[in-house]
Amino acid sequence: MPKTVAAFGEVMMRLQVPGHELLAQSDTLKYSFSGTGVNVISALSQFGHKGYLVSRLPDNPLGDAAAAYLRKLGIDTSKILRGGSYLGMYFLENGFGIRPSRVTYSNRQESSFNTAPDGVYPFEQTAGEMDAVHFCGITLAMNDGARRSMKEFAGQVKTQGGLVIFDCNYRPGLWAANGGYAFAKPHYEAMLELADIVFMNEQDALHVLGMTSAAGKQEREELLEELIPVAAERYGVRTVAGTHRSLLEDGRHSLRGYIYRDGRFSYSDVLVFPVHDRIGAGDAFASGIIHGELEGFAPERTVAFAAAAGMLAHTVTGDTPMASEAEVLRAMAQGLRDVER
Amino acid sequence: MPKTVAAFGEVMMRLQVPGHELLAQSDTLKYSFSGTGVNVISALSQFGHKGYLVSRLPDNPLGDAAAAYLRKLGIDTSKILRGGSYLGMYFLENGFGIRPSRVTYSNRQESSFNTAPDGVYPFEQTAGEMDAVHFCGITLAMNDGARRSMKEFAGQVKTQGGLVIFDCNYRPGLWAANGGYAFAKPHYEAMLELADIVFMNEQDALHVLGMTSAAGKQEREELLEELIPVAAERYGVRTVAGTHRSLLEDGRHSLRGYIYRDGRFSYSDVLVFPVHDRIGAGDAFASGIIHGELEGFAPERTVAFAAAAGMLAHTVTGDTPMASEAEVLRAMAQGLRDVER
Amino acid sequence: MPKTVAAFGEVMMRLQVPGHELLAQSDTLKYSFSGTGVNVISALSQFGHKGYLVSRLPDNPLGDAAAAYLRKLGIDTSKILRGGSYLGMYFLENGFGIRPSRVTYSNRQESSFNTAPDGVYPFEQTAGEMDAVHFCGITLAMNDGARRSMKEFAGQVKTQGGLVIFDCNYRPGLWAANGGYAFAKPHYEAMLELADIVFMNEQDALHVLGMTSAAGKQEREELLEELIPVAAERYGVRTVAGTHRSLLEDGRHSLRGYIYRDGRFSYSDVLVFPVHDRIGAGDAFASGIIHGELEGFAPERTVAFAAAAGMLAHTVTGDTPMASEAEVLRAMAQGLRDVER
Amino acid sequence: MPKTVAAFGEVMMRLQVPGHELLAQSDTLKYSFSGTGVNVISALSQFGHKGYLVSRLPDNPLGDAAAAYLRKLGIDTSKILRGGSYLGMYFLENGFGIRPSRVTYSNRQESSFNTAPDGVYPFEQTAGEMDAVHFCGITLAMNDGARRSMKEFAGQVKTQGGLVIFDCNYRPGLWAANGGYAFAKPHYEAMLELADIVFMNEQDALHVLGMTSAAGKQEREELLEELIPVAAERYGVRTVAGTHRSLLEDGRHSLRGYIYRDGRFSYSDVLVFPVHDRIGAGDAFASGIIHGELEGFAPERTVAFAAAAGMLAHTVTGDTPMASEAEVLRAMAQGLRDVER
Amino acid sequence: MPKTVAAFGEVMMRLQVPGHELLAQSDTLKYSFSGTGVNVISALSQFGHKGYLVSRLPDNPLGDAAAAYLRKLGIDTSKILRGGSYLGMYFLENGFGIRPSRVTYSNRQESSFNTAPDGVYPFEQTAGEMDAVHFCGITLAMNDGARRSMKEFAGQVKTQGGLVIFDCNYRPGLWAANGGYAFAKPHYEAMLELADIVFMNEQDALHVLGMTSAAGKQEREELLEELIPVAAERYGVRTVAGTHRSLLEDGRHSLRGYIYRDGRFSYSDVLVFPVHDRIGAGDAFASGIIHGELEGFAPERTVAFAAAAGMLAHTVTGDTPMASEAEVLRAMAQGLRDVER
Amino acid sequence: MPKTVAAFGEVMMRLQVPGHELLAQSDTLKYSFSGTGVNVISALSQFGHKGYLVSRLPDNPLGDAAAAYLRKLGIDTSKILRGGSYLGMYFLENGFGIRPSRVTYSNRQESSFNTAPDGVYPFEQTAGEMDAVHFCGITLAMNDGARRSMKEFAGQVKTQGGLVIFDCNYRPGLWAANGGYAFAKPHYEAMLELADIVFMNEQDALHVLGMTSAAGKQEREELLEELIPVAAERYGVRTVAGTHRSLLEDGRHSLRGYIYRDGRFSYSDVLVFPVHDRIGAGDAFASGIIHGELEGFAPERTVAFAAAAGMLAHTVTGDTPMASEAEVLRAMAQGLRDVER
Repeated sequence: MPKTVAAFGEVMMRLQVPGHELLAQSDTLKYSFSGTGVNVISALSQFGHKGYLVSRLPDNPLGDAAAAYLRKLGIDTSKILRGGSYLGMYFLENGFGIRPSRVTYSNRQESSFNTAPDGVYPFEQTAGEMDAVHFCGITLAMNDGARRSMKEFAGQVKTQGGLVIFDCNYRPGLWAANGGYAFAKPHYEAMLELADIVFMNEQDALHVLGMTSAAGKQEREELLEELIPVAAERYGVRTVAGTHRSLLEDGRHSLRGYIYRDGRFSYSDVLVFPVHDRIGAGDAFASGIIHGELEGFAPERTVAFAAAAGMLAHTVTGDTPMASEAEVLRAMAQGLRDVER
Repeated sequence: MPKTVAAFGEVMMRLQVPGHELLAQSDTLKYSFSGTGVNVISALSQFGHKGYLVSRLPDNPLGDAAAAYLRKLGIDTSKILRGGSYLGMYFLENGFGIRPSRVTYSNRQESSFNTAPDGVYPFEQTAGEMDAVHFCGITLAMNDGARRSMKEFAGQVKTQGGLVIFDCNYRPGLWAANGGYAFAKPHYEAMLELADIVFMNEQDALHVLGMTSAAGKQEREELLEELIPVAAERYGVRTVAGTHRSLLEDGRHSLRGYIYRDGRFSYSDVLVFPVHDRIGAGDAFASGIIHGELEGFAPERTVAFAAAAGMLAHTVTGDTPMASEAEVLRAMAQGLRDVER
Repeated sequence: MPKTVAAFGEVMMRLQVPGHELLAQSDTLKYSFSGTGVNVISALSQFGHKGYLVSRLPDNPLGDAAAAYLRKLGIDTSKILRGGSYLGMYFLENGFGIRPSRVTYSNRQESSFNTAPDGVYPFEQTAGEMDAVHFCGITLAMNDGARRSMKEFAGQVKTQGGLVIFDCNYRPGLWAANGGYAFAKPHYEAMLELADIVFMNEQDALHVLGMTSAAGKQEREELLEELIPVAAERYGVRTVAGTHRSLLEDGRHSLRGYIYRDGRFSYSDVLVFPVHDRIGAGDAFASGIIHGELEGFAPERTVAFAAAAGMLAHTVTGDTPMASEAEVLRAMAQGLRDVER
Repeated sequence: MPKTVAAFGEVMMRLQVPGHELLAQSDTLKYSFSGTGVNVISALSQFGHKGYLVSRLPDNPLGDAAAAYLRKLGIDTSKILRGGSYLGMYFLENGFGIRPSRVTYSNRQESSFNTAPDGVYPFEQTAGEMDAVHFCGITLAMNDGARRSMKEFAGQVKTQGGLVIFDCNYRPGLWAANGGYAFAKPHYEAMLELADIVFMNEQDALHVLGMTSAAGKQEREELLEELIPVAAERYGVRTVAGTHRSLLEDGRHSLRGYIYRDGRFSYSDVLVFPVHDRIGAGDAFASGIIHGELEGFAPERTVAFAAAAGMLAHTVTGDTPMASEAEVLRAMAQGLRDVER
Repeated sequence: MPKTVAAFGEVMMRLQVPGHELLAQSDTLKYSFSGTGVNVISALSQFGHKGYLVSRLPDNPLGDAAAAYLRKLGIDTSKILRGGSYLGMYFLENGFGIRPSRVTYSNRQESSFNTAPDGVYPFEQTAGEMDAVHFCGITLAMNDGARRSMKEFAGQVKTQGGLVIFDCNYRPGLWAANGGYAFAKPHYEAMLELADIVFMNEQDALHVLGMTSAAGKQEREELLEELIPVAAERYGVRTVAGTHRSLLEDGRHSLRGYIYRDGRFSYSDVLVFPVHDRIGAGDAFASGIIHGELEGFAPERTVAFAAAAGMLAHTVTGDTPMASEAEVLRAMAQGLRDVER
Repeated sequence: MPKTVAAFGEVMMRLQVPGHELLAQSDTLKYSFSGTGVNVISALSQFGHKGYLVSRLPDNPLGDAAAAYLRKLGIDTSKILRGGSYLGMYFLENGFGIRPSRVTYSNRQESSFNTAPDGVYPFEQTAGEMDAVHFCGITLAMNDGARRSMKEFAGQVKTQGGLVIFDCNYRPGLWAANGGYAFAKPHYEAMLELADIVFMNEQDALHVLGMTSAAGKQEREELLEELIPVAAERYGVRTVAGTHRSLLEDGRHSLRGYIYRDGRFSYSDVLVFPVHDRIGAGDAFASGIIHGELEGFAPERTVAFAAAAGMLAHTVTGDTPMASEAEVLRAMAQGLRDVER
């Protein structure tokens, strides 16, 4: 049964050089609008849920364009405030082979989202209208105002009985100026205390939460199976999920998802696939887990669905997943197909 | 020595989303015009023959654009009638990796070709001018009028001593509404009775013609070698040819062509290659077989030429093969080359 | 105060050759989705109202693309049914100077909208949720099913106390096959009986309704002032509005709007302006009238607002008006401006 | 009744910067293929005649592209030889307002056409198949080989009873290196002796042919009416036609055509119109005159048709006229129209 | 004789929606890099001078792209520092007719230029290498650091005997937050004290400098002739120049330049012309004045040259003038021309 | 420490069909400007050196565009002469899989570079300003004038103590008309006598220099190790370097670089990588060797740097390398990376 869900997060403008040229070679950019919350809510609305973004956009033509784009993605924009002056942006140059893709950011600190005054969002009312709300560690990295808003909103959701979903999404570059892991830890812990569903893996446990392996383990899977249950219990988290991902020599990616629920780990197959658009595919995995949880799938099915959704997101242009539930199920069931007439 | 050849069939407008975006993401389409007959005759004119399309286009800007495009492909458009109101169209979204390409059709039943009144084509005269005429099972699937026209034209060609070429090309989706194989069989049999050169494989024999393996065979090659000679004899067909094709794990295609002529099978090598544009490549194989037959190649050379032509067609943008005879011969002789200066 | 409004009508795919090339010269199309209802509701949602489209789209990638596009325009798509197989389309080649723009249609009769079965729309429920619903003479021209649905929906709106808005929009080409004016008249009269706000001018009165000038008048303005009051009274219409438009020698257009309300005519200034995109600008005028009526503007202000909205719609790419209420008011207040920083 | 016509002339590749950027600003070019002969024959085939180009193209991908493009325009390419190494090219930067368009040529002298060996064209045979053949003063400016070929072909046409059409088209820049008018005159006179229909005006008579006004006249129209009859008689030319063209202050062009036939001048109206693409429009006027002459129109109708064809050619992208006879007739009959549905 | 000149100012990234679409309609941007200093120095290097920009760009792919673009414009980038994190940006939506163009800025305050630390530029050394340096009121509006740098650099130039050029360029929006005219006045006066050549008109005198008409004059020309000599004397400015510009009903612009030098006013003709790209054309006028002053033109010739340069800049895509001295002279000498071959 | 370097060579215009279409299918070209000297100097200026091109461009819009493009690449164009009429051009159609890329040239012999009169370049002065100058065998193939200029310039560099760098770059097609290897040999020997650093491998030694294996060796590596030391000694060359390159079955390339210096061979790893743009990558290898030699790297480091630079050049659009020294070092140090934020 479809649920009503929201995400709290910033909308970024993505400005991408077409093809494989550099910014210093081209004169054209394609633009779209994304963000972790945008991606998750768009995917969930493709899966049939009613999805809102709670955010803030400038009241100018860039804000208008962002709002129009979000509506096109199926996101209800009626909870988006208009105010402030700027939109966060990033420029993307596509890599090729040994040459990596490059991302160059504009100043996000000045964005409408990151300069929202305290109290400007009606969190109490919005929390009451939602079955679940998604939060992300990227927002936590922004500034004190964003952190205060995020915790207040999550607290309201918890209080009013909604699911709190938290994606750790620790980006070292964003925390560096503040002192990194040490500064981040209490903020992450505050969110973990409130969260029902958390996206993380053993790296977050080791570095962000400062956990260590009692058994001195080194292997990622072993560390995962040791640390995640400890973290889940410590913070009272019902469901923890995440992925292990690697980049193969021939340029393809491999992805394996896990879910820890009811004291038990379930894993997806190791999926190996070529990648068309790298950005934002982690959000598709998260959306798949959330959908499985909202719909009451068995954990095995949830993690298989999420991994397939993540893989499909790599085949689509742009940050935002575009697959319907039927398309994800078909990708789970079938191998490579030719033309679909 | 160059021959004069024609094909009877519909011209479709192909509307393709550039790159890998979906129709719901893009705002731009590239268009071209194709169809089995278009592809075969264009390829044969690249091989040096004089080629006509016998078809019907609307007398409006879309029909003008289609005719101009066919002329550009080297097709003589003087046998194309103008009348009716619409052009068949299909939209193509390119897949990537696990995400298949998608084709969405407009209503072909209302097209100028599929609404041509009986008697509107001067088949008797045209048949007298051609050395060979190509027909396709897709036309057979359209409606009673198209089937009547097709049989009448093929009969005239036969009567006047031209070669009748028939590509079975059974598309389940097109016959579904009419009852599928059972409905199709007598129409196919009527064409097979008239045909000198037929494109089919063991699947057509099993399903369309309802044949069965006396020996209870299962393997595709065994079935092929058992059933095709029976069919050739039953319907009095001089030459039968076709391909086995598969999609490899790494996204490449494999293709092996066969020809059955003078009671003997000849096979091409199994070719393995990456694919740039999937649509219409079967028609390039057919053109290669027809060219070999018209030029009197040995069957081994014919099928090798046809397989190379098919492989090259996958490397070219659009439905329509663009390789000259010299380019096909070079692809047969050489392996991968770098830049040709 | 914002109202809740809907339109009932078909969504068309517009496929436009970029620049000034012909279909026979180019290989690229830009696409968007429009229709009278789409345009009117999009404009009203720009003016601050909550707007729905009541329509039917195919459940395929074209239907998905259309729905995404309508959402981008600010239209709530939750009243749009999915079913049927095809989308109406038109191709647009831009004219230049003496060379007129050309529109080529695909077969609309087969569209999802025009093949909707009786009873498939929940008109009674939808009518109850709307303050006003917009209908258009183009839908009336389609077929018996579309006419039945339209009258049923309009009747439900009337019964439940909503405003019925009807734009006569008589297109000779669409009625020609059925016998033209004589066939159309009773259908128009049925809608006029139900309507509160009607868009028409003296040409509709003369030709569609078969009225004549008692006084033998010839001038457009005189005929308008004689016939419109008679029609308004005969069919019980509260408000009648429309435009006189002409094409000047230098390529600019002139536009003058009128409104007849409470027994009195009000006119806008004669606006003269260059035109960037001709299609759909009449719908912007209609939206301006509807907005004025919904907001209770004085008739003089309503018609001035509507004319300015119509003029602005000619400056925007695509069929669909993009101006906010503030932008229309600014255009009313100011003359030409340079750059807005 | 449709005739069989040919033109003898070079095919040029046109490489145009899109929009209004300079070569030093852009990185993209649109390309097409044209030439006086290409333009005239394409226009005549649009008017229903069977049209050939007699020319020579390199046997490489540029030559293939040129031939495909000419076929798309409706030109029969079976009289085009393949050989030599290069294609003439010109780059076009669009002007705006006071900034003129700029044309930059590559080296035409090395083109396949301009390096054709003597005797390579089967002129005698081709002349026998044509009702009329078009020649152009641009070819006369190229080199000795081109001049010899041109005169030989024109002589053969004359001998075998076809119409010889000659467009003076004196381009000062092309003759400058050879000594200009003095060098050109005998070559022009040789062609005029052979010609039945000639395009020229009083400037050609004064400068190329060195004629002077007996009456000391200065006005263009007076000079025209004095000199053209003298020239027609001196060289035995049946029909002379041409245009007076000027560039108005507001950027529009004005065009008036004349025809001198049977000892009598006829003029078109002075047409005033905006210009979308300037290049090649003179060839459309010529095509209109030739069409009228081939079809036996009255001179008044011929010149009106030709002027309208010339005006329409300014509204179309590219060097080559795209209007059908029906479209030219409609432009003669009607004023500005809006959208044509 | 060519001079060595520099400008001190910010480089902005211009992101323009192609055609006439809005940001909410399109998905593509064209980008370039400009700024008053960029435009002036690029124009002067087109006129044959050696030109430097003194500025600061981020050391990331955006900074690389900007530097490459400036080099393409002919600007020597060896005086540009790399440091800071961001580039100022603005988005441009092209207007049409009554719909004005819209400019939306990103946060310039955070740009590399506007966050340059005191003392980071080697002004003393650079000043010694230049014949003239251009400064702009836009930089003055930025922040205290930019104002300090600007005055220090101008002081060094003055001290070392170079020409100080100052364009008042008062943009109300940029000063609004600081208190507008009152806040700006002392900063403007400081620059005027240092300047040899100043761009301003009577509006600047009235509003920025708070001057009033002793004679109570109202007409722009009268005010200009009264106030400019007073200002020139008060601040010791050798040359003052500027334009009066207006937007005509038919969309064309009119421009008249003036120069005040040696106690005497000279005016250009009133030029009337259509506009292709509005942004940055004022800088072309300034460049023409500077060129005339550097080359020792008579004032009449200088102002005519500058006005023609300004008019030509409106015909070129982008902010930056592209005309050579020869092209400006040709525009002064000739009227409209057709194609330049 | 950065050096001052130059290259002597022709600038070519590259006109590339976008995507994978043929010239006969597309209507759009992307253009850029390149050449061996352009590529080498651009790469060296990316590595921090001051780089000049010594060449000749036409004084027309194509020459302006070429010069602007070279400046954008970081090349100082102040040593480029303007004169002559034409620019060399080549058209590039991208291959796919078995279909090779195709290059079609215009007539280079007529280019400004290849028609430069003797004595037009101030070689003596320029040679005195450079630490090193790069020459290429392609120039040697052009004509007597180009050969004379090249030898004169190289002689001046040698005399004045600069490094002479010579890339053998023997292109059979360019020498074919003159008699091939036999004709070329003395010209190559003249350059080798002057050179300090030479790019060649065993194929050049065998064919161009007519050397043979004393030991009757066949393997490429063995031949290389036997012949290169002999050649280095014979012509007095300090450093010889080159690559072995092959095209793998799966479409990837393999590349191994060598350097012979101080009587010792050093090799890079065999690098295997996918290729985005094949043209011009050899020049990136050469630039890496030159950079190592100018900076005094150990030979092992030089050849590893050069091979990585060559590999990176295959990942970038266009003929010209775009990697900075830091990017090459990163590619040497790391394997495949994902996104660089």
